[in-house]
Amino acid sequence: MAMDGHRGFLALLVSALLVGFLSVIFTLIWVLHYREGLGWDGGALEFNWHPVLLVTGFVFIQGIAIIVYRLPWTWKCSKLLMKLIHAGLNTVAAILAIISLVAVFDFHNTKNIPNMYSLHSWVGLAAVIFYILQLLIGFLVFLLPWAPLPLRAFLMPIHVYSGLLLFGTVIATALMGVTEKLIFVLKNPAYSTFPPEGVFTNSLGLLILVFGALIFWIVTRPQWKRPKEPNSTLLQPNRATTEEVDGSMAINSGHNMDKSDSELNSEIAARKRNLALDETGQRSTM
Amino acid sequence: MAMDGHRGFLALLVSALLVGFLSVIFTLIWVLHYREGLGWDGGALEFNWHPVLLVTGFVFIQGIAIIVYRLPWTWKCSKLLMKLIHAGLNTVAAILAIISLVAVFDFHNTKNIPNMYSLHSWVGLAAVIFYILQLLIGFLVFLLPWAPLPLRAFLMPIHVYSGLLLFGTVIATALMGVTEKLIFVLKNPAYSTFPPEGVFTNSLGLLILVFGALIFWIVTRPQWKRPKEPNSTLLQPNRATTEEVDGSMAINSGHNMDKSDSELNSEIAARKRNLALDETGQRSTM
Repeated sequence: MAMDGHRGFLALLVSALLVGFLSVIFTLIWVLHYREGLGWDGGALEFNWHPVLLVTGFVFIQGIAIIVYRLPWTWKCSKLLMKLIHAGLNTVAAILAIISLVAVFDFHNTKNIPNMYSLHSWVGLAAVIFYILQLLIGFLVFLLPWAPLPLRAFLMPIHVYSGLLLFGTVIATALMGVTEKLIFVLKNPAYSTFPPEGVFTNSLGLLILVFGALIFWIVTRPQWKRPKEPNSTLLQPNRATTEEVDGSMAINSGHNMDKSDSELNSEIAARKRNLALDETGQRSTM
Repeated sequence: MAMDGHRGFLALLVSALLVGFLSVIFTLIWVLHYREGLGWDGGALEFNWHPVLLVTGFVFIQGIAIIVYRLPWTWKCSKLLMKLIHAGLNTVAAILAIISLVAVFDFHNTKNIPNMYSLHSWVGLAAVIFYILQLLIGFLVFLLPWAPLPLRAFLMPIHVYSGLLLFGTVIATALMGVTEKLIFVLKNPAYSTFPPEGVFTNSLGLLILVFGALIFWIVTRPQWKRPKEPNSTLLQPNRATTEEVDGSMAINSGHNMDKSDSELNSEIAARKRNLALDETGQRSTM
């Protein structure tokens, strides 16, 4: 891994952090300057925690949690430490998401507004439930030491896919939420007359989208994948270690397809291939 | 590639086709049964072409275009034929998207509703513009025979990333569009009182999301990637052929990072690695 690669990574990381940070700032400006501010009164002040906590936790922190294995200067840190950081950030995001749901349900109940009628609420609640499920399964299978390696190998591509799908769904839900809220509150002047709050909050929506695009780019570049543990193959010569340590979209080369049917053959193939890659002196990015 | 893999692929493909087809049917039921129907009158009938054309073209057909290289029974067809199908489907999707924009601008202008004030319109128009750009670049670089292979190799991961990002953005925009339209039209009874149209069209939103999730799963499984042309390395021993023929998220193993700086070294490494893979008798999935 050349320094050039690290420099390119750093530029993208700084861009992602900047855009993510700006998204949070824009959300704060929205609720503090254009809306009623923040509070826990059952009214609009309490509702306003909903966008603030979601953009902070479910968009920004979740995005960082997704790319945390990809920071090249952490590759010398232990995998366990990185897993703890990944799980910790996702736990914080989940807690903020749950508080943000309490805020909006509280607000609806106080104001006698029905809950769960909009597409935004359906997709959003489903995302929170699946996110917590993903967190629990991740904790049980990948963080606790007891899950057998074939189970980890089988679940890793699903974990990676679900994580990215959930992140994308959360961003789509945030854009629906901005749309809903602006139509509801911008009456006089109307949203359609381009009031400053409308233009400003549309821009917040664009920032959230660009943040998602940057995270998606960073997490799908194979060159920024954490290298597999140098001694994992040696320590576990009979297990499918490649997949276990390789949490990325650019992984599992054909042998997770029908694990039950072709497990043995494909694992032999995987080990052969690893061997071949080692022989060329290449770090495996599969 | 075992038959079991093909069977698993077939099940997923049929699910995706079914869910995509259902999305189109739901959209038709929405505008024909719950809304005013279809027509080209400058009014609501014309607006209704907007969701119909977008779900048909920009969601369903674009989704199929994305996975067309992954149908195992097409792997014996020529790459050029598959490129033509991929480009053709995306062209159809772009044309339907453009007509759907004409419908909504026409509707707004007739009814004196301002254009381009909502987040839905900002993200949607940006998606259409970038989609056409992607189509043009794809045509010039990957379909016409004149682009040099290093350029193709450099642009392929960007093409794949942009395509998936655009597809996800289109789905997010569709969900925003459903949200907007239901809030605008469901007044009496209101959206918040769970009228049948609200519940039905929310379900349409879920179908679109599930369709996107299925396409995203299919397109990120390395085992369903079209194998690289068997003789491409032999025909072009000095070019970076791996990336050129490998349009997938699960590709480019570290050597597209800073092409300008490390092109030569990395291409040598790529060729070495290909050689090593061939020696193990494995189809390269990198």
